[in-house]
Amino acid sequence: MERTDLHELRKDPLLGRWIAVLGQPKSPADYVVTRDDDTEKNCVLCAGREKETAAEIMSLPGRGRGWATRVIPHFSPVFKVEGELGRRGDGMYDRMNSIGASEIIVESPEHSVRPEEMGLEQMSKVITTYKERMADLEKDPRLRYTLIYKNSGREAGAFFSHPVSYLASTPVIPKRVKEELDGAKQYFAYKERCIFCDIIREELRVGSRLILETRHFIAFCPYASKFPFESWIAPKRHCCAFQDIVTEEIEDMALILSAVIKKLRAAFPGLSFNYFIHSAPNRIPRKDHWHTLGEDFHWHVEIMPRLLRTSGFEWGSGFYVLPTSPEHASQYLREV
Amino acid sequence: MERTDLHELRKDPLLGRWIAVLGQPKSPADYVVTRDDDTEKNCVLCAGREKETAAEIMSLPGRGRGWATRVIPHFSPVFKVEGELGRRGDGMYDRMNSIGASEIIVESPEHSVRPEEMGLEQMSKVITTYKERMADLEKDPRLRYTLIYKNSGREAGAFFSHPVSYLASTPVIPKRVKEELDGAKQYFAYKERCIFCDIIREELRVGSRLILETRHFIAFCPYASKFPFESWIAPKRHCCAFQDIVTEEIEDMALILSAVIKKLRAAFPGLSFNYFIHSAPNRIPRKDHWHTLGEDFHWHVEIMPRLLRTSGFEWGSGFYVLPTSPEHASQYLREV
Repeated sequence: MERTDLHELRKDPLLGRWIAVLGQPKSPADYVVTRDDDTEKNCVLCAGREKETAAEIMSLPGRGRGWATRVIPHFSPVFKVEGELGRRGDGMYDRMNSIGASEIIVESPEHSVRPEEMGLEQMSKVITTYKERMADLEKDPRLRYTLIYKNSGREAGAFFSHPVSYLASTPVIPKRVKEELDGAKQYFAYKERCIFCDIIREELRVGSRLILETRHFIAFCPYASKFPFESWIAPKRHCCAFQDIVTEEIEDMALILSAVIKKLRAAFPGLSFNYFIHSAPNRIPRKDHWHTLGEDFHWHVEIMPRLLRTSGFEWGSGFYVLPTSPEHASQYLREV
Repeated sequence: MERTDLHELRKDPLLGRWIAVLGQPKSPADYVVTRDDDTEKNCVLCAGREKETAAEIMSLPGRGRGWATRVIPHFSPVFKVEGELGRRGDGMYDRMNSIGASEIIVESPEHSVRPEEMGLEQMSKVITTYKERMADLEKDPRLRYTLIYKNSGREAGAFFSHPVSYLASTPVIPKRVKEELDGAKQYFAYKERCIFCDIIREELRVGSRLILETRHFIAFCPYASKFPFESWIAPKRHCCAFQDIVTEEIEDMALILSAVIKKLRAAFPGLSFNYFIHSAPNRIPRKDHWHTLGEDFHWHVEIMPRLLRTSGFEWGSGFYVLPTSPEHASQYLREV
């Protein structure tokens, strides 16, 4: 193998999906490494060890001295900020450089605080950090999309026990996001209404899948969830881009996000979960399928409890099976 | 909750994907059950305990007395064969009955035999069983698609330690399959060639992603794999439907499938993996997007080693990261 420095994006010719190939190739033996070094003693994400990470991208101040949240480059970035897109062919296939951003959002200076226990002020700062990073990265004309996501617990792919979220900015609109944009666009073309606004009205009307309602948000188990106890949080105000969230909404989002995670962890102690924010693509004008002024998309948070392992059925079909209906799941979460 | 007998399919209004809601709702406590009863002593799939399962759907004879492979209804079927499709609205959403088939294909009368060790004659019988079930279910005009899949190892969602594959027949074309059909159709519309035939030619020409070539098949790591060490097996003869496989190809497929699994398990002892067959939808004439006579699709097997846990990045973006390039992966598998 001559090209050991491979670090690129490749397009699946069948599905149109892009995937990333990392730089340092892992051999079979590299996959069996267990991490016994992820302890507070070894943690460079804790307060006081800032010099042991790369230079910080931003931080928000804490109450006393020091920081409340802190954003640093990813230790092994999939997407790198320097360079040109370099789109080119490769035999019958297509590739480009892995341009973008891979960042770690350190949610707290404390090692052992859980997201549902960090308090509303700290959670508001985490959300504000998300907003500021997304607004900043939107300015880069090479980047099409920024995904904020969190992995909590080993089953959910978490690497650090220190509370962190991640940010990935990509030069293409990711497949799963494009599917949502396309679905919302089709609905809008037919109904001339935002599908998310319709879902919010429907869930408030029916009530049987609702988990919680606050002044600015609702939390519910979607009608056709992929995973049991999957929970979505959506702002009542129609808005396509998460980074346009206002202060009053940030505090309310901190409240509902903490409450839903607390409920999930009460129903399933030690639960592993992922959440991510789906927002509109970057809005710098470009020749894009996504032309409308955001009337057909509506940002939201999807929380995925990792209760089941996916099998060949899910991977082969894209069909999911719910052993608990969204109505039952939301009832448990309402009552817990 | 009044509707405890819920057993239906629901359509995701955003993604157009169908999901299945099971009959007996699981409460949070039901998710933490560990299975310590999955031992040979308790196994009703073993030879001699045929009366403890539902009536068998088919079986192939073994060398001596008894059966070599045996197909039975799933113990907790997601799809049920009786009834009408019953498509209807539900507020703003869409649902239908969970019509179809959920079957267990018992691959051997022996409890502990591994797929890569069962021998070519037995593996040929397993493949013949797949073929016969698919050909039979294609006759049911309510069913649009039959997926054959296998879960091997706990990480891959396996439920039984007895060697089994599964069959799921659905009244809709599953999302992941429809994406492949659409991608292949687009390619065909542009190039007037089957994309799989082109991929097979390209992989044979380049060679760097090839694992193995037999008389009728090639095995390779796809250019833009989702998972590291993902391996596909495709027949050289253009053919859209797996159930049209001929005897000579069955023996050759048994050879290459066993060999690739053996190589994967040699590289990763105890590896969990899934495989599934992607074939054309059922070909009974219907008003379907899939009209051509199978010139734009080409059946194949996808093998997914479960080395990594998916994180919020994959779930949120549909973007995958490969820590080992397909070129490196296939080199390891060629040499192992």
